[in-house]
Amino acid sequence: MKATILNVGTELLVGSTLNTHSYYISQKLHEIGVGVLYHAVVGDNPVRLEDMIGYYYDTSDLIIATGGLGPTEDDLTKEIFAKWFGVPLYFSEEIREDIEARFRGFGRPMTPNNLRQCYVPEGAEILWNENGTATGFILEKDGKIAILLPGPPRELRPMFEKQVIPWLRQRVSQVLTSRYFKIFGLGESATEDRLSDLFAAQINPTLATYAKTGEVLLRVTASGASDSENQKLLEPMVEEIRSRIGDHIYAERDAELSEVLFELLRDKGLKIALAESCTGGMMADMLVSHSGVSEVFGVSVVAYDNAVKASVLGVPAETLETFGAVSEETARAMSEGISKISGAELCISVTGIAGPDGGTEKKPVGLVYMDLYNSLSREHRTFKQVFTGNRERVRQASAMKAFYEAIQWLKADLTIASKEI
Amino acid sequence: MKATILNVGTELLVGSTLNTHSYYISQKLHEIGVGVLYHAVVGDNPVRLEDMIGYYYDTSDLIIATGGLGPTEDDLTKEIFAKWFGVPLYFSEEIREDIEARFRGFGRPMTPNNLRQCYVPEGAEILWNENGTATGFILEKDGKIAILLPGPPRELRPMFEKQVIPWLRQRVSQVLTSRYFKIFGLGESATEDRLSDLFAAQINPTLATYAKTGEVLLRVTASGASDSENQKLLEPMVEEIRSRIGDHIYAERDAELSEVLFELLRDKGLKIALAESCTGGMMADMLVSHSGVSEVFGVSVVAYDNAVKASVLGVPAETLETFGAVSEETARAMSEGISKISGAELCISVTGIAGPDGGTEKKPVGLVYMDLYNSLSREHRTFKQVFTGNRERVRQASAMKAFYEAIQWLKADLTIASKEI
Repeated sequence: MKATILNVGTELLVGSTLNTHSYYISQKLHEIGVGVLYHAVVGDNPVRLEDMIGYYYDTSDLIIATGGLGPTEDDLTKEIFAKWFGVPLYFSEEIREDIEARFRGFGRPMTPNNLRQCYVPEGAEILWNENGTATGFILEKDGKIAILLPGPPRELRPMFEKQVIPWLRQRVSQVLTSRYFKIFGLGESATEDRLSDLFAAQINPTLATYAKTGEVLLRVTASGASDSENQKLLEPMVEEIRSRIGDHIYAERDAELSEVLFELLRDKGLKIALAESCTGGMMADMLVSHSGVSEVFGVSVVAYDNAVKASVLGVPAETLETFGAVSEETARAMSEGISKISGAELCISVTGIAGPDGGTEKKPVGLVYMDLYNSLSREHRTFKQVFTGNRERVRQASAMKAFYEAIQWLKADLTIASKEI
Repeated sequence: MKATILNVGTELLVGSTLNTHSYYISQKLHEIGVGVLYHAVVGDNPVRLEDMIGYYYDTSDLIIATGGLGPTEDDLTKEIFAKWFGVPLYFSEEIREDIEARFRGFGRPMTPNNLRQCYVPEGAEILWNENGTATGFILEKDGKIAILLPGPPRELRPMFEKQVIPWLRQRVSQVLTSRYFKIFGLGESATEDRLSDLFAAQINPTLATYAKTGEVLLRVTASGASDSENQKLLEPMVEEIRSRIGDHIYAERDAELSEVLFELLRDKGLKIALAESCTGGMMADMLVSHSGVSEVFGVSVVAYDNAVKASVLGVPAETLETFGAVSEETARAMSEGISKISGAELCISVTGIAGPDGGTEKKPVGLVYMDLYNSLSREHRTFKQVFTGNRERVRQASAMKAFYEAIQWLKADLTIASKEI
């Protein structure tokens, strides 16, 4: 099955919104064995949209369209696809009731323009929207398929994963089985380099790397008649990958560092606490993004100001004066300080110069100290690194490095792991 | 002039690389008044690429193509465009010398495949590459223009800004001038609803809304012979927008809430401090993303655990027991607690149930208390809201609401503003 991803929305053409849909949908389609031939973006213009559907209708089996399903007058995707598929629209009472119930939930009356969203192309399968009022649709005719999805990512993604992927899987005869590896501390090209002969020889399973923020996702996919057959094809490749880059793999699934760290702590019955300077709450935010994290996390002190490092975290004034806020000594005092406040077994502090200002010759922009403190053994592991990139990149890289090293320590170390609970 | 941006590269179609070129180029073209009608992506496939050039050659005046100019065999963009424009390729000694000099600079011999990069479509203008070996080209024939650019962003962007933009500026007679409004507390469709007659009647200036996370960006654009002429066209529209939705506009530019709040605090010589429960460091992270924020921000206590709310922030145990952690009383005690720690004039606390677990009938998932405390006047402004959506959305909405209300208070209130510095 050959697909085109067609994004409808003038906001993409004027550069107001970055197109993450085509990226996301391409990845997901690739995983289930649907090839993508084209991406296309067109504005909220009915003539051009119709013309474009014609071009891609001829050259693809499947068009996945995003956007233009909302209540406003420039939302025309549904109408024009219905025209192309030669079907009329009917008014769905079921959708109206659903939209009205949503508005009641918000405590607001439904505005009349929302009624536009109640029309359904005849014969289309309705894709219900968990997070918004615009339903999606699947249209099918003469071997051609069009799948229409709402534009907002938080509406599109659950709809795509829970409804579209299962629907498409049934149409693809081949079974694909994938394994994932999350890699930290080895870039995308370095990863491919270490596996270059595997990449060169790949037929089945296939390999692909995806550069994520500060890390790499490696996917290995086998294609066959059944999942168990695929697993047999995957096993030797997985072993080979582990033996070559195992020291950089922190998860054998598509998980985040903060998630893996949370789970490790929970499984070991340990708590973590944070003292953040340049990361400025980002590490806490990463942890708190996971539901249930209160089992392992209770406090982060964002001590952006040196006075707070002293008054709240108890960093000695002499330490700050002698070594400066960005130093190994301050990092260690910060993690010991948060240990006293929290009683957590694993305490992490980060202090650095995120830039773009504040660098000196001795302490350049990007210099960061990350300290991990085991409150039980009173052992420190301190990491010093000069990160490149802009302010956001330096802050993110610091948070990720600290989490990665915490994972490594928790995986290896018996002192932390041996706490009696 | 109407443009298509055509990205060539299979890595985009398999979801391995996020397409930032179309976003970047669209923004830049929009700024100089070149309208973008289409984005398109095609793989390294000569037949499909040629077919696609045909479609967009017919529908646009200008095609900006990226990628496929390198030395490998699947780099075919130049060859196929030359075919379309009906011109042969010639070997450029000048380019060969340039590439050889680069390789000498790297201390490596030039590999023979680099010679492919020395061929130039006859009549094309050469765009020299500061950061790589692949030159770009401008082809022009019968009123149609094709601009070919190398794929790597750090090669493309300087080439585009230093060579392509000045070249295009000379071809565009029209000047575009835009004004932006950031809107909070009014959704995209509600915004359009309040301005529906302006949207319906728009010719020049034009209006467009963009839904951002939890907020809306409104753009108004005038087109004319000069910027000053455009400003005259914009002024009455801007006044009308202010009078209709001014209470929801927090910035008349494309700025974030945290940025506007930071600037207001800085201008007033005030400090902010945070006590975060369900937002979990997100508010601090938003502030710290801005360079120079240490002028106004020194500390956030992420008190995710109730014990920390008591021990660090000094929330009385009775308050927590009687009213619970998610209550107006706890929110007030938290902001007073961080006020004592920080001495900041404006203190914000947020406590709520982000979900998906932890809700009860009386305190459902999404219930959040946000307290703003003016340490100078000892006045509180407490906001209670039940946000809908998933965990991330509830946390984000809480942070944004708190920042928005802080901005409103700072803009209106003289008590905070009158601090002597």
